Amino acid sequence: MRAFADADQRWIPWMRRALELAALADGYTSPNPLVGAVVLDPSGTLVGEGFHARAGEPHAEVGALAQAGDAARGGTIIVTLEPCCHHGRTPPCTDALIKAGIARVVVALTDPDPRVAGGGLKRLRDAGVEVISGVLEAEAAQQNCAFVHRVRTGRPWGLLKWAMSLDGRTALPNGASQWISGSTARTWVHRLRAQCDAVIVGGGTVRADDPLLTSRGLRSPEPLRVVLSRRLDLPDQAQIWDQSVAPTLVVHGQDAPAEARDRLEALGLQREVLPACEPESLMVVLAQRGCNRVLWECGPELAAAALQQACVQELAAVIAPKLLGGEPARTPLGHLGFQAMEEVVVLQGLCQQRLTDDLLLQVTLSPLSDPC
Amino acid sequence: MRAFADADQRWIPWMRRALELAALADGYTSPNPLVGAVVLDPSGTLVGEGFHARAGEPHAEVGALAQAGDAARGGTIIVTLEPCCHHGRTPPCTDALIKAGIARVVVALTDPDPRVAGGGLKRLRDAGVEVISGVLEAEAAQQNCAFVHRVRTGRPWGLLKWAMSLDGRTALPNGASQWISGSTARTWVHRLRAQCDAVIVGGGTVRADDPLLTSRGLRSPEPLRVVLSRRLDLPDQAQIWDQSVAPTLVVHGQDAPAEARDRLEALGLQREVLPACEPESLMVVLAQRGCNRVLWECGPELAAAALQQACVQELAAVIAPKLLGGEPARTPLGHLGFQAMEEVVVLQGLCQQRLTDDLLLQVTLSPLSDPC
Repeated sequence: MRAFADADQRWIPWMRRALELAALADGYTSPNPLVGAVVLDPSGTLVGEGFHARAGEPHAEVGALAQAGDAARGGTIIVTLEPCCHHGRTPPCTDALIKAGIARVVVALTDPDPRVAGGGLKRLRDAGVEVISGVLEAEAAQQNCAFVHRVRTGRPWGLLKWAMSLDGRTALPNGASQWISGSTARTWVHRLRAQCDAVIVGGGTVRADDPLLTSRGLRSPEPLRVVLSRRLDLPDQAQIWDQSVAPTLVVHGQDAPAEARDRLEALGLQREVLPACEPESLMVVLAQRGCNRVLWECGPELAAAALQQACVQELAAVIAPKLLGGEPARTPLGHLGFQAMEEVVVLQGLCQQRLTDDLLLQVTLSPLSDPC
Repeated sequence: MRAFADADQRWIPWMRRALELAALADGYTSPNPLVGAVVLDPSGTLVGEGFHARAGEPHAEVGALAQAGDAARGGTIIVTLEPCCHHGRTPPCTDALIKAGIARVVVALTDPDPRVAGGGLKRLRDAGVEVISGVLEAEAAQQNCAFVHRVRTGRPWGLLKWAMSLDGRTALPNGASQWISGSTARTWVHRLRAQCDAVIVGGGTVRADDPLLTSRGLRSPEPLRVVLSRRLDLPDQAQIWDQSVAPTLVVHGQDAPAEARDRLEALGLQREVLPACEPESLMVVLAQRGCNRVLWECGPELAAAALQQACVQELAAVIAPKLLGGEPARTPLGHLGFQAMEEVVVLQGLCQQRLTDDLLLQVTLSPLSDPC
């Protein structure tokens, strides 16, 4: 393997195409990463394209090689992530590449999965394949930030989203909150859910808003709807109890009353007991269930706890051009314990976007400067 | 006088120049409007420019005519506001124009002042001067929105400004609020104050923040600092008691204790008693004092009252990319009494602008579609 050199810039347009291919499966590959690949024949002509569509289905390299057929022999594969060298649900891609006679492998990002972690590139190099790594590495790390975060920390990438009025309110004093944002922003939320593996609320949100929490069919299957409720004081009737639309998981603490647990069982809901009924415990459970990216759509107390327990890597705030007012009105975040302005969370790199009349502000909390 | 016709488009570039000239005195002309004028000789060559610099000083037309001298005879004057026809602190501009032999007067906006209100244009027309009105009328109305609003309603144009974190907080739970926004946004606030005739706070803001409330020298004299305090429970020491930097007016209700009134007198502060200690009463007092445009920099309760009493025509919210949190933390607006989402204030035409890391959102509440 050699470091990225000026001459390797010729691979950048192909890597962009591979990243585009990878993005086609955004939201569908968990617990796997997004991966795209293109194969060029020895003359540099495109002969194959592929992407990883879903866990359990062929890897991007295999699809691209299949398209290329014999034309791959002596050619180059450009792939967004280091090819795997281990037997998972599918055989190692390194073996497939060597067998196909690929002469050169160009990679964006080293796979942080400890079963790979450079081993794939080493195996290729040992087999006499030229290996170039680091082409559009930052873009690839950004694309797979959720996967990389989950592999490194054992927790899914958390995105906290709220909609508030220009005066910082998420509900009227009487609790009414439908709708603060306009239809464009609500459609954007449906698309956001489609990119996530789970959507998390607390019991309070179920009681106050009775939300549906689906992508409205933009993703199939719908993301897992998760209710975190310490005491299981949940309503008998709620839209999310209907699992014909989307699956629902209720997680609760060890002190939740037995009768409430029985009631959930009777509803046919999935249920898990957390050792501590806290966001960080929930994250471990969701990572084990294969979630790379989860969306927090909860009330202020749970949002504050998720932030404090480092379960939020990204924020998205929709600001509606409305004034709600109200001294006891609900605001996005509960107590964070700050005593001085020097202690508060300072966000770098706020991005803004219009959603018709509403304004979307997005920011990443975890720096991506050291992606792998 | 005739209506705006296609041929009158040739005046638009000159009117733009007249508007630019008018803007040079932004913040200085109250209670008068901003006015700019250019004079062309009979061949269409620019021979004079003028603007109204300050109440009591010559009107724009007079300055432009003085520059033009004899070259104005048979020429055209392009002026942003209808020339006055009454004796104020200076003689009527209509007489000066007729005397100078001006053949054509091109005007953007009719003066809403009942002492003028079309009378200036009529007088010119009666004297045989060609009069064209309505050139860049909307731009001129926008430039003088504060003056027009004050003349029509008897109240100054009110601008409510706040700075809040991304989670809608204007202070930490312990009251600390310096500084939520960055230095660029704070400098922008100084410029904003320089465009206003008065800056209003409540007693709570004086107690909590001890603000200086000046333009930091960007305007001379500094805007009037106004404290609205029902009971005069104000601190003995406060930056705004020092009137060597800027004048300070304390307004209070009729039930304010006599000893508190005496204490203010001893400090040498200006003082006024309101019939009712409410924003709308204060607005009448400030209009009488010649304020066209005032800035509300107050806490949530006073801001909510000002909004409810139609004392706010424009909002400016600075959003800092910070998270403050806190259940009892201060937010921009107090109770507005809304019970359903259909009742809330909906703002049209939100404008956004970056102030380095902060985001400035601005919106006008009063429609300007019917400017005169």
